[in-house]
Order: sequence, then C-alpha cells, then structure tokens
Amino acid sequence: MSELELQITEVGNEIRQLKLDKAEPSIIKERVAVLNALKAQLPPAGGDDKSKPPGRMQLKTVKGTRDFDTKESAVRNILFDLITRVFENHGAGQINTPSLELRDILMGKYGEEGGKLIYDLKDEGGERASLRYDLTVPFARFLAQRKVNTIKKYQIANVYRRDQPYMTKGRYREFAQCDFDIAGAYVSMSCEAECVLIIDEVLSQLALGTYEIRTNHRGLLEGIFEVAGAPQSEFKVVCSSIDKLDKCSWADVREELISVKLVDAKVVDVLGEYVRVRELNPQMNKVQLLEWFERDERASKNKKIMDAVGEMKLMFEYGNAMGVSESAVFEPSLARGLDYYTGVIYEAIILEPSFKLAQVECSEEEQNARIGSVAAGGRYDKLVGDFIHAASGKKKASSKNDVPCIGISFGVERLFTLLEQKLAAEDKKVNSKKTQVFVSNAHASSQLLLERMKVIGTLWKAQICAEYAPKNKVQPLTQIRDCEEENIPLMVVIGDDELKNGTVQIRNVLTRENTVSFEDLFKLLILFLGNQKRRNG
Amino acid sequence: MSELELQITEVGNEIRQLKLDKAEPSIIKERVAVLNALKAQLPPAGGDDKSKPPGRMQLKTVKGTRDFDTKESAVRNILFDLITRVFENHGAGQINTPSLELRDILMGKYGEEGGKLIYDLKDEGGERASLRYDLTVPFARFLAQRKVNTIKKYQIANVYRRDQPYMTKGRYREFAQCDFDIAGAYVSMSCEAECVLIIDEVLSQLALGTYEIRTNHRGLLEGIFEVAGAPQSEFKVVCSSIDKLDKCSWADVREELISVKLVDAKVVDVLGEYVRVRELNPQMNKVQLLEWFERDERASKNKKIMDAVGEMKLMFEYGNAMGVSESAVFEPSLARGLDYYTGVIYEAIILEPSFKLAQVECSEEEQNARIGSVAAGGRYDKLVGDFIHAASGKKKASSKNDVPCIGISFGVERLFTLLEQKLAAEDKKVNSKKTQVFVSNAHASSQLLLERMKVIGTLWKAQICAEYAPKNKVQPLTQIRDCEEENIPLMVVIGDDELKNGTVQIRNVLTRENTVSFEDLFKLLILFLGNQKRRNG
Repeated sequence: MSELELQITEVGNEIRQLKLDKAEPSIIKERVAVLNALKAQLPPAGGDDKSKPPGRMQLKTVKGTRDFDTKESAVRNILFDLITRVFENHGAGQINTPSLELRDILMGKYGEEGGKLIYDLKDEGGERASLRYDLTVPFARFLAQRKVNTIKKYQIANVYRRDQPYMTKGRYREFAQCDFDIAGAYVSMSCEAECVLIIDEVLSQLALGTYEIRTNHRGLLEGIFEVAGAPQSEFKVVCSSIDKLDKCSWADVREELISVKLVDAKVVDVLGEYVRVRELNPQMNKVQLLEWFERDERASKNKKIMDAVGEMKLMFEYGNAMGVSESAVFEPSLARGLDYYTGVIYEAIILEPSFKLAQVECSEEEQNARIGSVAAGGRYDKLVGDFIHAASGKKKASSKNDVPCIGISFGVERLFTLLEQKLAAEDKKVNSKKTQVFVSNAHASSQLLLERMKVIGTLWKAQICAEYAPKNKVQPLTQIRDCEEENIPLMVVIGDDELKNGTVQIRNVLTRENTVSFEDLFKLLILFLGNQKRRNG
Repeated sequence: MSELELQITEVGNEIRQLKLDKAEPSIIKERVAVLNALKAQLPPAGGDDKSKPPGRMQLKTVKGTRDFDTKESAVRNILFDLITRVFENHGAGQINTPSLELRDILMGKYGEEGGKLIYDLKDEGGERASLRYDLTVPFARFLAQRKVNTIKKYQIANVYRRDQPYMTKGRYREFAQCDFDIAGAYVSMSCEAECVLIIDEVLSQLALGTYEIRTNHRGLLEGIFEVAGAPQSEFKVVCSSIDKLDKCSWADVREELISVKLVDAKVVDVLGEYVRVRELNPQMNKVQLLEWFERDERASKNKKIMDAVGEMKLMFEYGNAMGVSESAVFEPSLARGLDYYTGVIYEAIILEPSFKLAQVECSEEEQNARIGSVAAGGRYDKLVGDFIHAASGKKKASSKNDVPCIGISFGVERLFTLLEQKLAAEDKKVNSKKTQVFVSNAHASSQLLLERMKVIGTLWKAQICAEYAPKNKVQPLTQIRDCEEENIPLMVVIGDDELKNGTVQIRNVLTRENTVSFEDLFKLLILFLGNQKRRNG
C-alpha cells in the first residue's frame, strides 16, 4: 500500500471514530474534506505508474509543478512588476542566490515539519546539496559568508517544498516567492513599520479585495506563556495550535491542546484569555487592544509582555506617520511556524475579494485556504549570528555577531490565482505579447514576401514590437482578424502600388481605416516617441 | 583517491607520454592547461571536507554556483532587459516551465557526454525527477503535452549541469539561459533568418566588440560524410572532433580523427577538403563559399549537400532583406554536439572585445573560452514528434506528429562576465538601486524622525523611489555624502523652519544647492512626469 493509501485509511478510520463519538459536525466536516483531498490525489483507476506499459513515456510535469503559458506568464508578470516596483521604491537592490544550498545550511531552520519537506539532490559522493526551501535562510547565509551587516535587498525566485500539493489552493512543490529584507541596526520599529507599509502598498495597488495585515510579537506570546505558567519547552507545539485560531473555533483549539498536546486545562484557559483578546473585544482598535494588556493585572507585571506591547505601539505610531492604512491590525493569536523569528511577526490575508470567486470543486478547507495568507514575515535577529558561530566551531556565547534582520515574503501563487480570477471576472484581456505593428500585404494576389521582410526588418531595427506572417499564401483579411484577436493596434500594409511609389499604408485595426487619420497620427507619435524614450532611457 | 585526483594522475601520465613521443608543443601545452585547471579544483592542503572538525559549518555556496550581489544583479538585469526587449520586439510571449522534469523526459537528448551531467533528485520512492539541463527539451515536452504546434515564445531561467566548473570562463553548474523559439510551419528559412537577426540585434546593441554568427547545416555535414565515404555511424564522434576547428589546427584534428577515432586517413583528408573550405578561402564571402560547393564536382552531385546549400542561400537572402549584418557567416566546420538538431545550426562568438579584457590568471584554454560562444541554436524538427510517439507507446513510423521548431539560446554568464569587464574598463558605474530622492533633516540638532517618516511615506505613496535614514542621530553631511556615493540626484530636506512654514527644501545633490534652480525644476518635472507615466502605463 502506498503512503497515500495508508493516509486515506487512517483518516477514514478517524472519521468513523469521530462519528461514533458524536463529535462536532464542523470537525467531522473538516476531516471529510481532508479525506476527499487525499482521494483526489489517487491516480485514476488502472492509470497509475505501475500499470503503464514500461516503454511508454508520460508527458507531464513533475508532481506539484506546472507550466505557465504565455497568457499565464503575462498575468504573473503584472504581479512581479508591481511587487518589484514597490520594493525598488523603498530603495532595495536585487540580489540572487543559487537554487541549491548545502544541506547543512538548511537543516534545523524550518521546524520539525518544514525540515521533512526539503528536497535533496541525489548523493554523488561530493557535497550534500538541497533545493532551497525559502529565500530567508540563503539570505542569512549570504550575509554571514560575506560579513555584510547592512543591506536593503529584494529577491524574486522559486523555492521548493516536498509538500502534499493542492493545485486549486495555490500550493505547489515549486513556487515563486518575492522577498524584501532589511539588515542593519536602525531605530527600533522603524523597519517593522516600513515592512507593514510595503505589504499595504502592494495589496492596495493590486486591489484584489479587502485585506488585513495581522501583526504580533514573539515576545508577547512568550510572556503570555509565562503568565499562564505553561512550560517553555512546549512553546512551539502550543503555538502551532493557537495559530489555527484564524480557521478553527477556540473550542476546537482548546480541545486539541488538552486532549492531543496534553496541556493542563487551567493553563489552556489562561492562554485563551490572552490570545483571544481581539476576538473577544471586536470593538477595540489595535491601540486599545495593546492598552488592554497594559491594564491587565498579570500582563502588566510581565516584562516580556510589556516590552512587546511598547514595541508594537511604537511600530503603529511610525506606521501611522508613514501612512499605513487601517488594514494593519494587532492579532495576539498570530504565531507563525518558523523557528527563526525573534520579534514582530506579520501575515496578510485577503478577507473579501473584490470580485466573485470562481466556483471550483473543492472542500471547504481548500476554499478557505484559497483566499488565505498572501504575504508574511517578521524579525529574525539571530539567524546570521548563528551561522557565523556555527562556522567558527565555537559555542555561541554572546550576540556579538548577530545582525538585526527583518523581512517580508509575498506568496505569488495565491496572488496569481486571485489576480487571474479577478481579470476573468472583470472580463479583462491580458495581452500575452507586446506587438504594436503588423506588416501585411494588401492583396492576396501579390504576396510580396521579400518586401514584407524588408519592412519588418526596418521596424525591428527601430526597436518596434512588430510581427508579420512568414507565409507564401496569406490573405489580407486573415491578417486583420489576427490583429483584432491579439489586440495589435496598427498595421503597415504594402501592395504593388505602394511599392512603385515607395510608400506604405498605415491601418488602424480597430476602425479598419487606412488613411492617416488624426487618431492614427496620435497613436503613431505615441508609439514612436515612446520607443525613442525607451531607447534613450 | 577522489575522482578528481584520479583525473589529475591520468592527465599527468598522458603529458609524460606526449613528451616522450615528442608530440606537438601546442598539444602538450593544451594538456598542461587542463592539468593546471584540474589541480586548481583541489581543496587547499588540510582544508577539505574531511579534515574539518565535524561540527563546523561551511559558509559557502554549492560547488559551481554563486551569489550575485546588488551591483552584479543590476549588471545582469541590463542583459536580461535588453534580451527580453529584443525577444518581445519580435512578437514572442513568455512561457515558464518548472526547474524539475521527469528524468525520462531528459534522457537521450544531450549526447553521451551531456547525459552524464544531469542532476538527479534523491529518489524518495515517487517519480524520478531531475533538474532541467536546458530549456529546449522542456519546451518540446510542453508542446507535445499540450498539442501546441504554433507559438513564438521566450523563456529566461536557470539550467543545471553537473559539469567541471570554471568560474573564470563563466562555466557554472547553475546558469541562466535566455531562449527564443518559433514552433510552426512557415516559409522555409524565414525563421532561420529571423533567429540570426535576433542574435545580430542583441550583440550589436550590447556592443561588447566584434562578433561573428557562424551558421551551418546538419544536412551539409551529412552530405560531406557521404561524399567522403565516412560511416554514418561515426557521424557524432567525427563531428565532435571537427567542431574543434575553431580552437585547434587542422593538423591536430586530423591526428585525433586518425589516431584516436581510427578513421581512415583518406576519408579524413576528403572531410578536411570540405569542412575547411572557409579556412582555405578567406577571400570568399558566404555566398561565394556556398557557390564553391555548387561548382565542386562531387559535392554538386550529392543531394543532401545541394539541398542544404540551397537552403543556406535562401536563409542569407532573407537575412539580407531583414537587415542581418555582415557578422553572419557560413562556417562548414560548425557541428554542435546536441542530438536533436535537424537543419540549420548557428553559434555566435565574440571575436575582439571593444575594451581591454581584465588580466585573469588562467590557462590559454580558459582565456580562449572566456571570449568564446555567447549564443547558439538551430532547427529541431523531430523532438516534439518523438515525444508524442514515445507517449503513444507505438513505434515512430512517420513524421506526422512532428512540429517544426527552431530556437536560440543566449548564454548569460559569459555575456555577464564580458559586460562587467566592459563597464569596469569604461569606468561606468551601474546603480544597484533606483533611488531618486533622499529625505534628510536639515540640522544635526533636530533629528525630526517622525517628520521625515511622514515625508517619505508621502513619496512612497506617490510611487517615487525614495530613501531616508531610520536613525536617531544622523548628520546632514553624512546623508549628502551617501547620496553622492549612491548617485541619488535629489534630496528633500526638512528643518524646524520648514516645518513651521509647511515647506521643504529641495536640494540638487551634485551642486549642493537648495534653491529650486531651473535645472532642479527640469529634473523634478522629469521625475514626477516620468512617474506619472509609469503609473498610468
């Protein structure tokens, strides 16, 4: 039995037990959705790898990866261009690190679950190499290796995770991340505010719908742990349950903490009091919520909580000065799984799309995830220092080599899925190429291939986006229709008369008129001047 | 003994034998260069993996890969932008395929040598996946899988080869390729001419020096084989020797063919007559060389040669119409190693850089390679049909499913090395970021952090590339110097007086004047109008 089949059996048994136990319908529903998603992964009956004739090649991409055709790539480029522009506006330069990293560099950075998902290359007796899991750890390696301690950079690249793929919700095994990071010692909370602003700028400009930038502080969570008397050794496992509060009810999370993770019920209830402050006080804004902690008797006596609250207040003050919108909120239940965060953490969620989401056959869990987290990040002040110490071979005794760092990572695949649906819902056509002029013959009776080649060569030399039909039998009408189909605005048409006179016709594809109208002149000037500018720029 | 040490011993023995045999000095010199290059790969004494204390981490990139910092990435972006623009001018849309491909897709496409260089992922019991070796085979898989038979596309992505890296000559294990391909049935030789034109446009616009676009035809080489009476089964091994004629003398190649590859000396001499036509007739242009074949008694009776010569003449005629420069030449010794080419092949070489190459300590072989091939490609009409047939499980009986394809691949790493050296030789500084405005405080005595945050937030909102110093103690003079250092043209300066009056000073960094001079006004208008355009465009 394959691992997948085993999982299906397991979840099936679990559901039967839940039904016997008369568990809450929402929990059963969630497990059924998981079961269906697992079943969807099964190969079609009689069509799996083993039943194929051995000599027959499968024409497909590797599991969890996909191609993007010209239209899809054009939509992705809208995203990449917008995100790049915002990063550059903030003074970041681009860096590039390899897709491969030494396995040792990646180990122990992504929590227990993450570590299992790293792709290793086949061991050929040399170095042990893996595909990068994110862009943050390679960036920290870059800083430690080069002894760089001040930089504002961005990187856009694919990362790799051997995860269970859910294509409909944008979870792939190869996917693009757009990362922005600031390394260096600056005024406390100024970079936090700038990172939140950057998320705000990108999401407001994309206009995919209402969104929320949830922020929290690792120190606050640690302080709440102290106040509740929870063992620090359980910090990670408990946080991973608390982090589910955006999808599950407190009753479910509480049950998991008590029954599965075996945390004392009293401790769990105190934790709940604090991490649910926002949920229980929906009328309070972020500053009022922070003040709630300052007023609370136990919290106000805990140094970690008070330090974190003070920093968060400063971050919001700076954010306010820089123009961060009301989308930035304080969410004390936000935990995030990665090991390397040390301070403020944040995550952006699309709440309500500005368009009708396409109906896709998928479970409720998948449906939720599809409009889930689109950007996340936080402060990681220890990672670079840890690398420097690991390389020195000595035990880390101080924070001497630490380099303060903070970053954001935009998850492109979900944004892409949303943007694609938005464009479809708004019936907006994205051009998959930039062609502005098509060179055509005037009459089917006179193909003028060499002459068309001369004209198109001249246009290409002038760096104008141009096409022609390299065919011997091509109808003028077909060429006009192709231009209409592909949104090409202008045609240059040559016939025998034009050749004799050394002229060409210029045709507006929309109006099909071929005199140089005022409108054509205007378009031509824009085209040629725009091109002039591009060449000089 | 490691594989590397074995190789070194082997080449050492070979050199001793060559000296005993009184071999030609050029051959010995070449082998010594190979030996030195191999030795350079040895880890420093006492510094290899095994001698390190086990707990000590190596802060380095995987062998044969490298980081690119912000300045290097900016130089690479000049290349990527220029190449992308030319591809788009020719009406190509972008596609993206995954970095991973099923191993079966890649096998048997890259010749005996190439196949050994494919990176496999660790076998985890599922599909057997590899990193892509080039972008051509994945593109053919894309066409076959989607039943697409007409597309003009480009793709820019990294490819992976487990080759012996030579960093100084731009040979890496992970490197970027910029590919342009046309699939579809068009007028014979029109796409060949366009591909040669594209190489011509890119290299002339890059202006790295004089260059040559060498073209040949697989059919011509096959015909020469027939005329010389060489066995077709030896085609690949013989071609791989002939292909060296751009680096080695005919005497060396002849010797290799006779002594190593055991080809009959008479056959070799006939081959030499034909493949050396250009070398032996330096006064002839490409058309005259093609006519030489038409006049030659044996060649003119061979159908393969005459078909190829006819096609090449047509390609040059079309190229002429489109404006291909004299850089395009006919080189009958060009062979190229990949299995999948079926017609015209081409390769572009930088002959003489327009600047003084940096002196790098390297062997003569490496020095040659540094100004070697920067783009290559050809026609591959069978690859897509082969995939479709392999997937059908039936023997390929006809060319029914074939999709005519032709492509170019630009090797970015060599172009990058050359462009970097050119910019250095010309003392041209490339900005690693796009910042145009710096927000500064007027006096050290008044830091105005919150106020600076307000101003920078306004600029960011207006989508202007802007920076400030998020510090509490920052000197106005330091900020001006930083702007000078980083080519930031304008400063927005605020002080207590300005705050009172609700104004700001605008300072020209170059002149250090802070009145709005005519020049400042001009720059400001360009800045703001340019930005306006970008936002609307």
